[in-house]
Amino acid sequence: MIDIEVLRRVSDTLVARKQADPDSSYVSSLYAKGTDAICKKVAEEAAETIMASKDNDRLQIVREVTDLWFHSLILVAHHGLSVEDVLAEFRRREGVSGIDEKKSRTA
Amino acid sequence: MIDIEVLRRVSDTLVARKQADPDSSYVSSLYAKGTDAICKKVAEEAAETIMASKDNDRLQIVREVTDLWFHSLILVAHHGLSVEDVLAEFRRREGVSGIDEKKSRTA
Amino acid sequence: MIDIEVLRRVSDTLVARKQADPDSSYVSSLYAKGTDAICKKVAEEAAETIMASKDNDRLQIVREVTDLWFHSLILVAHHGLSVEDVLAEFRRREGVSGIDEKKSRTA
Amino acid sequence: MIDIEVLRRVSDTLVARKQADPDSSYVSSLYAKGTDAICKKVAEEAAETIMASKDNDRLQIVREVTDLWFHSLILVAHHGLSVEDVLAEFRRREGVSGIDEKKSRTA
Repeated sequence: MIDIEVLRRVSDTLVARKQADPDSSYVSSLYAKGTDAICKKVAEEAAETIMASKDNDRLQIVREVTDLWFHSLILVAHHGLSVEDVLAEFRRREGVSGIDEKKSRTA
Repeated sequence: MIDIEVLRRVSDTLVARKQADPDSSYVSSLYAKGTDAICKKVAEEAAETIMASKDNDRLQIVREVTDLWFHSLILVAHHGLSVEDVLAEFRRREGVSGIDEKKSRTA
Repeated sequence: MIDIEVLRRVSDTLVARKQADPDSSYVSSLYAKGTDAICKKVAEEAAETIMASKDNDRLQIVREVTDLWFHSLILVAHHGLSVEDVLAEFRRREGVSGIDEKKSRTA
Repeated sequence: MIDIEVLRRVSDTLVARKQADPDSSYVSSLYAKGTDAICKKVAEEAAETIMASKDNDRLQIVREVTDLWFHSLILVAHHGLSVEDVLAEFRRREGVSGIDEKKSRTA
């Protein structure tokens, strides 16, 4: 199994880059461009995910979903949030759908 | 910190539902409708994420990103993939951007 | 050649329906639901246009582009605009790209 | 009233550019890039339309809807269709919704 903590490391890196010089990286420049530029990337990656799915190109689907999640995390960080908030919402829904939280933590 | 394994549990559940009766749940019915119906949901959730961002409504952003990731995982499962494949791609990119993979695996 | 004035008639009808009872038609109910519901439809129709294109299904492409334009005109009317404003922008761009406006108006 | 024939002129120009050198214009280069590049532009312009609507910026809405229609017409031409096909579909729907076709032609 793949180390799932990679998502937390990516999220932490994205949050940290909010303080960086806009010229220092792709992500920093995207924050500097603001909400519309970030939203536009989310829309683009969603469209590319759909096109990869229509092509039934599994490698491309994985790449585009990764791009989509990556840019979602930039959007989330842009609004002062992190992957923890998304995970908390997934956890909340687990409860809603009746899964025993304690049991799943122990497992 | 939130239990990040929730993503793996959600992915496992979504993969398992591919065998279920189409009438048994929202997710099963979506698989039965096929690629276009699933892609359309990904597009819708991306649009709702963008609108929540434009409203600067942080609670709604979290909900919509969760919906977007949830439906991405349905798309991924529809193509015989799982969250492991997305995580592996994130891991691959960590390597590309120069992070010591071995160190992060041990940690 | 098809009667191009159909676009103006559709736009006029859509503008008129803003005054109608929300229960009286699909379009009236969409106005009543507001900006997000209309935007969501534009996103959906764009996604369906893309999927029809990927299928190379020409009949479906025509239907989806028509749906996309139809819902664009609802969005435009929602903001107190009409097809005239879109046509004026197309005219403005014709001028920009060096076409003799006077000649085209007379023709 | 604005000269509505502008749409037909734009469509004719877009169809004609399919024969042009890919380096000769933005539109020609887009045809050369193919279906995915054109679809991606449609998705982008739809997203920008939604963001302009959320900003309630009427000038920007007009510009983005024009961009959206322009790129829809490129997509349509890419598939061997033209604005006539979209207009014919609008005409067909007028009939469906019970409007007297003859009367509207005479008017």
